[in-house]
This record gives sequence, structure tokens and C-alpha cells, in this order.
Amino acid sequence: MKKEIAEFIGTFTLVLLGCGSAVIAGGEIGFFGISFAFGLALIGMAYGIGPVSGCHINPAVSLGAVAAGRMNMPEAVRYIIAQVAGAIAAAIVLLLIANGKADYSVAENGLGQNGWGAGYLGEYTMGAAFVFEVVATFLFMVVILGATGPGAPAQFAGLAIGLALVVIHLVGINITGVSVNPARSAGPALFAGTQAIGQLWLFIVAPIIGAVAAGLLFKTGKLDS
Amino acid sequence: MKKEIAEFIGTFTLVLLGCGSAVIAGGEIGFFGISFAFGLALIGMAYGIGPVSGCHINPAVSLGAVAAGRMNMPEAVRYIIAQVAGAIAAAIVLLLIANGKADYSVAENGLGQNGWGAGYLGEYTMGAAFVFEVVATFLFMVVILGATGPGAPAQFAGLAIGLALVVIHLVGINITGVSVNPARSAGPALFAGTQAIGQLWLFIVAPIIGAVAAGLLFKTGKLDS
Amino acid sequence: MKKEIAEFIGTFTLVLLGCGSAVIAGGEIGFFGISFAFGLALIGMAYGIGPVSGCHINPAVSLGAVAAGRMNMPEAVRYIIAQVAGAIAAAIVLLLIANGKADYSVAENGLGQNGWGAGYLGEYTMGAAFVFEVVATFLFMVVILGATGPGAPAQFAGLAIGLALVVIHLVGINITGVSVNPARSAGPALFAGTQAIGQLWLFIVAPIIGAVAAGLLFKTGKLDS
Amino acid sequence: MKKEIAEFIGTFTLVLLGCGSAVIAGGEIGFFGISFAFGLALIGMAYGIGPVSGCHINPAVSLGAVAAGRMNMPEAVRYIIAQVAGAIAAAIVLLLIANGKADYSVAENGLGQNGWGAGYLGEYTMGAAFVFEVVATFLFMVVILGATGPGAPAQFAGLAIGLALVVIHLVGINITGVSVNPARSAGPALFAGTQAIGQLWLFIVAPIIGAVAAGLLFKTGKLDS
Repeated sequence: MKKEIAEFIGTFTLVLLGCGSAVIAGGEIGFFGISFAFGLALIGMAYGIGPVSGCHINPAVSLGAVAAGRMNMPEAVRYIIAQVAGAIAAAIVLLLIANGKADYSVAENGLGQNGWGAGYLGEYTMGAAFVFEVVATFLFMVVILGATGPGAPAQFAGLAIGLALVVIHLVGINITGVSVNPARSAGPALFAGTQAIGQLWLFIVAPIIGAVAAGLLFKTGKLDS
Repeated sequence: MKKEIAEFIGTFTLVLLGCGSAVIAGGEIGFFGISFAFGLALIGMAYGIGPVSGCHINPAVSLGAVAAGRMNMPEAVRYIIAQVAGAIAAAIVLLLIANGKADYSVAENGLGQNGWGAGYLGEYTMGAAFVFEVVATFLFMVVILGATGPGAPAQFAGLAIGLALVVIHLVGINITGVSVNPARSAGPALFAGTQAIGQLWLFIVAPIIGAVAAGLLFKTGKLDS
Repeated sequence: MKKEIAEFIGTFTLVLLGCGSAVIAGGEIGFFGISFAFGLALIGMAYGIGPVSGCHINPAVSLGAVAAGRMNMPEAVRYIIAQVAGAIAAAIVLLLIANGKADYSVAENGLGQNGWGAGYLGEYTMGAAFVFEVVATFLFMVVILGATGPGAPAQFAGLAIGLALVVIHLVGINITGVSVNPARSAGPALFAGTQAIGQLWLFIVAPIIGAVAAGLLFKTGKLDS
Repeated sequence: MKKEIAEFIGTFTLVLLGCGSAVIAGGEIGFFGISFAFGLALIGMAYGIGPVSGCHINPAVSLGAVAAGRMNMPEAVRYIIAQVAGAIAAAIVLLLIANGKADYSVAENGLGQNGWGAGYLGEYTMGAAFVFEVVATFLFMVVILGATGPGAPAQFAGLAIGLALVVIHLVGINITGVSVNPARSAGPALFAGTQAIGQLWLFIVAPIIGAVAAGLLFKTGKLDS
């Protein structure tokens, strides 16, 4: 259970602090601050729980690791269950804290959910959202597999991966709010209304496609060092 | 005395630069800048005095280390005295510098004290403040104990812990100004008026609960690697 | 082909995320956010593909490495072809995503191309642009060659080089948008109209002069440790 | 001469990019961006030229190292000459680039010089400026000596020291523009008018006091690990 507890706490932290930065302080810290919140939460956990579970805290990453031949599927399933549970718990705690402000309402202010189209940030099309999530998760997974692979200084992986997540957010918040992580999308979506639920599929499908594609690139030895 | 001098200087730095960034430059650098000021001050000291004392510079962290079985109580008490003294000294020096600006007044501009409720930043309820401080300190302590524990690359701990403090501030300044550290709260509170003194208890109790809970999670082996 | 694939993906990432941050989120994240986007994209790739190819992702860097005697010319040519191809592919994907926003037009909003003079950001003269690009690439190459040279902790090179790229952007976006990298300039320029094409020569010539000068300084032993 | 060339290039970089960020992009990147420009320039050079000279690029640091017994005075003098020369060269190049913008004038926009009092940023008193510079340089030197001392992971020193310089700037730009480095102050002051020249003494005296005090604290073994 140690690894599952670690993944639960890690995903809890990513969602509470990442989505929390948008909900509680987005007006003050802007896209720039939100981008760092997601990336630095990941860095903290990479060193905090990484020694136990490897700090995937992302179902797409676990499935990409399976595709790369670095993890088996039963363990990935246990990881994913813990990740989604952590994300849901974080959404609940975030809701609890956010409701401590008089004028907060989830309908009005959201819960950091992902999305696209009319009424969502830059109002990008579904096609753009899909392309961005596939490509961004692919590149994110290249960093993850490369930085933890043979020949790489593995201790730096947490920093490199977290900073990659920052820059992905810097670019993509306007497009989808940035998922690249089905658990991170699922947690807030459950409490954020029908549009978020209705669009959740993209943030499950696209990140998994991107991460698995990167995994296969490494599996075939085309990019492994 | 070497360790106590180190803890004094470290906590002095955290409070002078962290609270100082809010008091002296908050209008220019915003929540984002203040968040980095606290976290980067911690990183600087983690490598500057960490080799001597471990750079706790936070009574909750010292008590969490006791709970985790990594420190004994008499040493924790000596650490805490040095930390509180350093925080008070920093508040005095900050006041001295801030008074070098014509229109500064502690009553008007504060001294970077923590708080909640009417008139304090986002005006969150006491309940939200309490939940946030407990949860944030718990997660902060998970990073600290995990990143310095067996199996972790200990040299990276300072970076991971400091960046975790940044993201906690990104989320929580609106809620409580972010304590997760009773000494950091006590220093400015002594000079910042009756409301700060009256609310100080929460920033002693909640961080200690969070840090000790994380310590016990590691002590029981539930999260240790 | 492994190294060329790595250089292709790396340059693709730098241009997609760096230029993408300007095109998609520039209004929200400002020069500061764009600066970090370029630098952090480089850091991610330094650890993600660095173990395979060394992560040059910049023709000036490859030629500087030749000048320093650390690479042979045929390999540099293969690297440069992969880099330029990656940059062009990134510009195409960025165009695809950006067109997913109703009011985007490449003529109006650009594609993150470099430039100078009337109508370009700070409207600096060509002379200032040239001096800046030569000096900035020289200093950038000093960091690269020093941080990966004998006596340096090579695992930190990715961080140091990426953060150096951040600060170069903090200073220089107003002047040229910052190239220091002919591939990064060539990709967007191909799709950004005649002015960008007409000014592209400077972003090929100046970075190469700066990088080769630094390479020679190390080659002669004047700065090698 | 290798070490002196390294110190020349390093100080040149710090002043060109640090002061340059203020002069060329200050309006866009704000205090926050300027703070990172100084700190990240230092990080880049710490790994770029650090293997050659140790990357002092600051006369106060060289004298503090003498006080700590880690350097001899003749070498410190050679370092300081190279540092001041590098800072002056940087001011000249910065002036050259800045003049490439039509509406730039050194009298109006300055050259990133330090100062205090009427007309200088927060208009702090000389006393506050003096206290800040002494204390900030003392703390900066504690990070430098601690992070490079026995028991510390020396490879991280560049990161820790650079990030400490960021937070010192976050706090102190309003007060003095932040020197903690006589060479950094001297370079721009020579070209920035009589007020800058007249106030230069403080930015020579105060940083040296702070750095030497820290050096003595380590020399006596009161803070060494």
C-alpha cells in the first residue's frame, strides 16, 4: 500500500495546489503563477514521494511507462486508482477551503477544471485542444522517460519534469487550462458542472495517446540513449 | 551553539526577506513575488546553514522531525528558541528599514503578519484558514521528510522544499498570508497590533498539527521509502 | 538517426513552447513568462534528450562546439539539418493550434518571429540588434562550454544553460525578440511574412559569430578550466 | 590570466544582463523580472566560469573570502581589478545597445545605477539603505561561504547563491536598487551622472562590511560546519 499512499498524496497535492492556485489566487498571480504552481507542486512531490513510488501522479504517465516497458499493467492500474482518488479528495478539500470566502461559488468561479470552446478562456476549438493535449503530453513524456532513463542523471529528473510542466502551462492555459493528466482533469470536473463532465473524455483520451506514443518511441529504441 | 546560531540566522533571513518582500515591495512584485521571496530565502539558507543545523528554521518542522523519530525533544526546544529569537530580530530589523520610507506605518502597511477574516486579504473564514494551514503544513512536511529520507537524493532537498514553499504561498497568501511556521508568524505579530497577536494561536496550533501528522505517517513506516 | 531524432524533437519543443508562449499567451504572461518558456523548454529537453544528443537544438551551438574542438563538422551538419527541420515542424504545429482561436491571424499576431526596427517591439536599430545577438550568444556559449567542460559538474549544465537563456530573454525581447539560435528564427520566419524573411540573415550571422568566438576562446585554452 | 579573464566575463555578464534588464525591459518585466535577471545571470556564470575562477564577480565576495581565510589578498586584488573592468565594459556595451532605441537617454532612463533618497525609487533614507546593504550582503555571504564550505554539496552552490541574489533583489530594489556588489555599482555609476557617483561610496563600504563580517563569523568557526 506504500506506493498507492504515495501516489494518492502526490496527486492530491498536484490538484490541491495547482487547481487551488487558479481558484484561490488566479486573479492575483495570473497564468504565470498558475503555471508555476502546477510545476512546483510536481517538483516538491517528485522529491517528497518519488523515492517511494516514482511520483507518476498521472494516469497517462503510468500508461506511458507501461508502453515503454518500464511498468506492468496491474501495477499501473493500482497507481491509477490511487491517483484518481487523490485528485477527487483534493477537489473536495479545495471546495471546502474556497467556500471559506464569502463570494465564492463553484458555478461562477470554477474549480480549475479543463475545457475548451465558448466560454472557456481563449475559446479555442476542440481540434486545437486535442492537438495541443496530444503533443504536449508527448513532449512531457519524452522528458520523463529521457530524464529517468539510462545515461541520464536521474536525480535531476524531478526538476526537469516539473519545469517542463511549467512551460507547458505557460503555453496552454489559454487553450485547455492544460491537462496532460486525466486524474488532474477528473477531480475538479466531478464538481464543476455538466460542461466539465461532458468535455472530460478529451482529457482522458488525448493525454494517453501522447504519453503512449512517447513510450513506444523509447520502447523501440528510437530515442533511448 | 553552532547549530543555534545557524537556526537564528536562517529564521532571521526567512522572515526578513519573506515578510520584507511583502512590506517593502509587495505593491510591485505581487503575490507571485512574495511567494518566491519566501521559497528562495529558504533555498539559500538550506545550502548556506543546512550543513550545520539542517536548516529547519521552523518550529513545526522541528516538532515534525521529533514525531518522525529523527530528532530528540531537548534539541528541538533549543532549535525553537533560536528560531523564534531569529524571527523577532528580523521583525525589528525590517521595522527599522521600513521606517526609512516616509509614508510607511506599521499600522497602515503591516509587517507581513498572518491573519484571516474581515480586513485580511481574501477575508477567508477561520475554518478555511485552519484547514489550509493544517493541510499545507502536512504536505510541506511530507516533502521535507521524504526528500531527506532514505533513498532520496538528499542534496536536492533544499531545492524541493523551497520550491514547495513557493507553491504553498502561491495558493495560500489570499487565505492566511501563509504561515506553516509558528516562528515566521510570531516575529511580525509582536509588532503588528492586537489583531495579529489575537490570531497568532492558529498559526502555532495548525502548523504543528500538520507537521506532526506527517511525522507520524513516516514514523509508522506508512510512507517511508 | 537517434541523435538526429533527438535534435529534431528538442528544437521542435523549444520553438513550439517558446514561440507558442508568445503567440498563444503573450498577452497574459508578458515578457517575463515568455522568457521562462524558452528557458524551461530548454531545461526540459536538456534532461529529456540530452543523454542522447547533448541537446544542442541550436545551429550556433553546434558550430560553436566545432570551433571549440568538441564536435566534427559532418556531425554538426547533420545536427543542423535536424534542428532546422524540427523548428519548421514546430512552426507548422503552432500555426495549426493558433488557428484554433477565432481571431488569430499570423499577419496580425505573428508567429514569434525575430526582428528589429520600425513596428517590431522596442524598435531598436539594426546595429543594436546585431550587437545584442553577437554578445548574448557569446555569453550563452561561454555558459554552455564552461558548464559542460572539464572540472564542471556536468549534470547541472542543463539547468545553468536554460536559466541563462531565461535571463537573455528578459533583457533582449524588446530588442530582437531574442534569437541566439538560427533554427529558432528560421522556423517561424518562413510563415511570418516578408519582413521576417528579409531580416532572417542577422539571426543566422550574429549568433554564429558570437558562438564561434566563444568556441575559439575555449579552444585556445584562454578560458578552459 | 585565465582566472582574471573569467572574472572579467562573469562580472560583465552580471552587469550587462542585470542592469540591462532594468534599462531595456524594466517597464515590461518589473521588479520581479529584474530580480531574476540578476540572480539567473549569476547562476549561468557560476557554472560557466565557476570551474575556472570560482565566480566571485563581486569585490565584496572576494574580500569576504579573504576574511574567511579562503583567499589571499594579492589574488583578491587581481580579482577585483578584473571585476571592476568587466563592470565598466558592460556599462559601455549596455549604453551602446540602449542608444539603439530612439527615445532612450541615460539622463532620463538611467543605466541601472544604485542610489537612495529623493528621486530614487522608494525614496528610502540613507540610513535604511546602509542597513539594508550591510545586512543583505552579510546574509548573501553566509549563503556563499556555507554553500561552498565543508559538508555542503558544493555543486549546488551556484543555484543557491543565485537564488539568494534573486530574493535579495525582490526585497531591496525599492530601497537601493540592490548592490551587495561594489563592482556592479561602479560600472553604471560612471556613466549615470553626478548623483550616482556621489552615492557610490555607500555601495562600496556597506557591502564590504557585510561580507567581511560574514567571513569572520566563518573564520572563527562560529558558523562553519
